[in-house]
Amino acid sequence: MEVLSDQACHGGRVQYISHESAVLNCTMRFSVFLPPQVLEQQDSKSPVLWWLSGLTCSEDNFTVKAGAYETAAELGLVIIAPDTSPRGDDVADDEAYDLGQGAGFYLDATAAPWSDHFKMYSYVTRELQEMVCGSFPVDPGRQGIFGHSMGGHGALSIGIKNPATYRSISAFAPIVNPLQVPWGQKAFNAYLAGNEDVWPQYDSCALMQAAGDRSSFPEILVDQGEADNFMPEQLQPEQFAAACVAAGQKLRLRMQPGYDHSYFFITSFIGDHLRHHAAVLSE
Amino acid sequence: MEVLSDQACHGGRVQYISHESAVLNCTMRFSVFLPPQVLEQQDSKSPVLWWLSGLTCSEDNFTVKAGAYETAAELGLVIIAPDTSPRGDDVADDEAYDLGQGAGFYLDATAAPWSDHFKMYSYVTRELQEMVCGSFPVDPGRQGIFGHSMGGHGALSIGIKNPATYRSISAFAPIVNPLQVPWGQKAFNAYLAGNEDVWPQYDSCALMQAAGDRSSFPEILVDQGEADNFMPEQLQPEQFAAACVAAGQKLRLRMQPGYDHSYFFITSFIGDHLRHHAAVLSE
Repeated sequence: MEVLSDQACHGGRVQYISHESAVLNCTMRFSVFLPPQVLEQQDSKSPVLWWLSGLTCSEDNFTVKAGAYETAAELGLVIIAPDTSPRGDDVADDEAYDLGQGAGFYLDATAAPWSDHFKMYSYVTRELQEMVCGSFPVDPGRQGIFGHSMGGHGALSIGIKNPATYRSISAFAPIVNPLQVPWGQKAFNAYLAGNEDVWPQYDSCALMQAAGDRSSFPEILVDQGEADNFMPEQLQPEQFAAACVAAGQKLRLRMQPGYDHSYFFITSFIGDHLRHHAAVLSE
Repeated sequence: MEVLSDQACHGGRVQYISHESAVLNCTMRFSVFLPPQVLEQQDSKSPVLWWLSGLTCSEDNFTVKAGAYETAAELGLVIIAPDTSPRGDDVADDEAYDLGQGAGFYLDATAAPWSDHFKMYSYVTRELQEMVCGSFPVDPGRQGIFGHSMGGHGALSIGIKNPATYRSISAFAPIVNPLQVPWGQKAFNAYLAGNEDVWPQYDSCALMQAAGDRSSFPEILVDQGEADNFMPEQLQPEQFAAACVAAGQKLRLRMQPGYDHSYFFITSFIGDHLRHHAAVLSE
């Protein structure tokens, strides 16, 4: 782990970290926000939130655009923002913005040429998880996960599959049903070609339908802008709402009039999401 | 005026605007934040703040990185963020980051090749001023000005020279004494070559020294990070503090331990600045 930068922000610190990923077989970067509480109290362990970004993003977009750190500082939350895919000249790529580098879809690719590097599911849930919990003053028993668009898909699908790790879940404009929409079908047809059996493992609606009774789980928060150009072709929150009803999963789905798919939407409601996670993780 | 984009943010709208500038002799862009109050009440006129950005910035940096709009929405403040210089293929430029495009220094150039376009002082104080006050629901009697680094120089120097227009003033890490530091000397030697007599007109320390008794003016707020790499070579807030004492100008200079020159510094204290302006403009 190499600390590339370390800057004061809202009484805490924002660090950009570089490290060699064995899972992804390349050098990766992520950002971490350390709230003042962990800087001031050496024995303190904070709740930690995992932010998963959307298509074309790196670790930088959330870090500079979301405006999350004032509230995170107030609430004492560590926030980790990973990159969205493996990177590098020897990593497979595609000219399209929605495949290859910048479009890892938080899954473990099984098909060539992607399977050498594209293992974002294992990277986030295992390798980076272990590194963060071993390197920063975070409480592994108080973790939450959230994200935007492709990262909303990642947050929901990873959270549903790993309830013992991620106790709180939320999402902005998530791709909830990749099995049924162009972004997801394109990604699955490339990364998981010839392996259709595993596709539902990365579909939040399918996962929720297969999850059994989730009535004892904390509420999930989802915000969706009504002026989002990617709705309804790519984004179908009502499908996820129906799956939650069937599973008994409490869902707070908020349709936000006038809001689009951008970080201006995210920054408008990021404080609500942070308070949602802090409340669940304090239970 | 062409509205390039118009997006919801914190209950208000963020717009990017393009227009032909007669003063700068090129196409320019700026952003405007319209708080919910002006959207909801058609007869309402809001206070307006002018944000002037630093070297290398465009209208975009503050707009996406400062995290200013939540508090601006609460306080009902319109915020205008202009670009930092004229732009275009036929606009003079320099390879250095601190001269030419992206480095207008909020002055009116008198020397070739700069004098054809580089008139940011007149652009901000006259052309854009008139366009904004004529096009948006703002109260010309309640205007404030603030900025960062080169834009802090712009905010202080413009504000001191135009007290009837800009009632409230603040700055982050401002270049207060361009006459005495490398950034300012390089800019003045280029843009104002052979015209040394006007240089003090663009130096906030010199302007404050020549301003006479300013004891009846509202307090100026300045934040300066103590871990700012550009201090003390380029940034010398104590010089401005001394000039304020001599003029009877109330100054709140806050040295912020651990903070650098970046937008992580700005976003940490932007709320305080917005509340400073709102308080002065409500008097």
